[in-house]
Amino acid sequence: MTPQGHLHVVILAGGSGTRFWPLSRAKRPKQFLSLAGKVSLLRATWNRARTLVPAERIWAVAPRALATAVLRELPDLRRDRLVLEPSPKDTAPAIALACSVIARIDPRAVAAIFPSDHVIRDTSAFKRAVAVARRAAAAGALVCLGIAPDRAATGFGYLKLGARPRKGVASPVLEFVEKPDAARARRFLRSGRYLWNAGMFVWRVDRFLEVLARVAPEVHAATVAVAAGSRAAWRDAPKISVDHAVMEKASGVAVVPLDAGWDDLGSWDAAARQGSPGRSGRGERVIIGSDGAVVFGGTRCVAVLDLPGVVIVDTRDALLVLPRASSEKVKSVLEAVRAAGRADLL
Amino acid sequence: MTPQGHLHVVILAGGSGTRFWPLSRAKRPKQFLSLAGKVSLLRATWNRARTLVPAERIWAVAPRALATAVLRELPDLRRDRLVLEPSPKDTAPAIALACSVIARIDPRAVAAIFPSDHVIRDTSAFKRAVAVARRAAAAGALVCLGIAPDRAATGFGYLKLGARPRKGVASPVLEFVEKPDAARARRFLRSGRYLWNAGMFVWRVDRFLEVLARVAPEVHAATVAVAAGSRAAWRDAPKISVDHAVMEKASGVAVVPLDAGWDDLGSWDAAARQGSPGRSGRGERVIIGSDGAVVFGGTRCVAVLDLPGVVIVDTRDALLVLPRASSEKVKSVLEAVRAAGRADLL
Repeated sequence: MTPQGHLHVVILAGGSGTRFWPLSRAKRPKQFLSLAGKVSLLRATWNRARTLVPAERIWAVAPRALATAVLRELPDLRRDRLVLEPSPKDTAPAIALACSVIARIDPRAVAAIFPSDHVIRDTSAFKRAVAVARRAAAAGALVCLGIAPDRAATGFGYLKLGARPRKGVASPVLEFVEKPDAARARRFLRSGRYLWNAGMFVWRVDRFLEVLARVAPEVHAATVAVAAGSRAAWRDAPKISVDHAVMEKASGVAVVPLDAGWDDLGSWDAAARQGSPGRSGRGERVIIGSDGAVVFGGTRCVAVLDLPGVVIVDTRDALLVLPRASSEKVKSVLEAVRAAGRADLL
Repeated sequence: MTPQGHLHVVILAGGSGTRFWPLSRAKRPKQFLSLAGKVSLLRATWNRARTLVPAERIWAVAPRALATAVLRELPDLRRDRLVLEPSPKDTAPAIALACSVIARIDPRAVAAIFPSDHVIRDTSAFKRAVAVARRAAAAGALVCLGIAPDRAATGFGYLKLGARPRKGVASPVLEFVEKPDAARARRFLRSGRYLWNAGMFVWRVDRFLEVLARVAPEVHAATVAVAAGSRAAWRDAPKISVDHAVMEKASGVAVVPLDAGWDDLGSWDAAARQGSPGRSGRGERVIIGSDGAVVFGGTRCVAVLDLPGVVIVDTRDALLVLPRASSEKVKSVLEAVRAAGRADLL
């Protein structure tokens, strides 16, 4: 047995999401889109994982309905490394299932768990942070990667630290704080002792399963049973996030700051900040008098005149036009599409 | 011989135009679009003509390249009533050719000449004005239908009268005034003695050809020869509008006011004022927080959020998005498309 278990990467490849409609659809969620570069976010996550470990130690967890799409997008993913959730149950069961499967192969493994729909620009900084996190994990900590806030965001959970975080060091997390209101978010930003919870974790699978058994026994029992072959046990797993089920209740949680050009790409506006999407897609682009206008998707000619900051999302059967500042309101469009009886477009 | 010749209608079915790109294209100009109702502007012009005369007295003039499209759009147009311009030469040769052809069949005919790309909402008022114009034409006048200005438009030529025009009466035109600048246009509007030149004319073909021979002999010679079968003579006809070639120089020009909900549909903004184009096209429409937004064309779902007054023109291979207030600038987009080497989109 190695003194330190192998590092495995778990890519959370599931998750729907409606924020990038009409480019994203129920059957083609955000992680399959090329929102920040030439390759999809999922594929970029794979490429990042490959800088950490060989392909045979990269796992993907996804609901059954996305299995084919994931394998198509990740041709180097070993079929036996794709962990299928019988149905979507949020992150706690998905992560627990993956860790249980890994634990059966490599009980001392350290698992690094990454969402597949975020952007990380600086792979070197990312690798350094994971290395620090891995050492802390090997020593027994449940480690988060935390992002230093650059604005008083109300859309993220926060990790409260006892002191300002230091680069290259794992610090204890005092508290998991749910998405704050604007006033609290401003206090967090000023204090300098809060990091964004980016949903990236590094831990020994044995440690995680031990904590899980204590703080979320139903999740533990169900997922260990499914990992052992009893797929029916999945129905007993509650739908719950890993933050609620485990992180908020566990002791020994640490955070390593990640300063690597991270963005969760939470909206069209966020996507517009990445890359040069005005020139994305294969179609002709004519953008006149429209600073900050962006066009996503599309093989057609798209011409924009005198509409600064407009977002145009051009797909075969649906077109969305809105100002970047209204990016958070895409859901109201989806509701109207659904109300019009056009669920086929979702 | 009847004391008063038959009324014939000449529909000017040619004309390109780039103001409605990308719905209009070089091969499908504005008159073929359904910009203000269920049928195309050309078809609506035909329907209006049919309230005046039987089908065998309706003529269409169009350049050769549009012949098939015109016949497809006007299935009741008799093939021998389609007068083909060997090449586009502006309105003077087109109208002169049609009048020459009609004169060979019916020398005392009165011709009513209508553009095919305008909107006229009130057919009854239109018919009444044409009846008045016809009487004045039978008596020898070259009659225009003139529109009372409701704004100081700089995009039209004006007809100057000696006094305020009276409904149902043909008044002498003192002068044809070219498109004025804004200050002059305001003076014209205030004076109440100017009407817009709408490019609609009623006259006896013999009178018109007689005046034409005097004031524009090259146009007369070329078009009479083409009407007699010598198509090659067309190359001698200058490219010139009927206003410049004839109306500005002729004496005995009269105008009948037309108050019939006329609109020349000069831009997307003008088209947006007509009908309810937000619900046009066959695609789903979701328009939220966007008063005055309009969507033209398209079979796809089009969703607009928080963009009041935006115009979206959705076609198979090109999409245009602009504020209604920028409708006059579509040409700058076309120039950019051409500069990008994509003349195929024009």
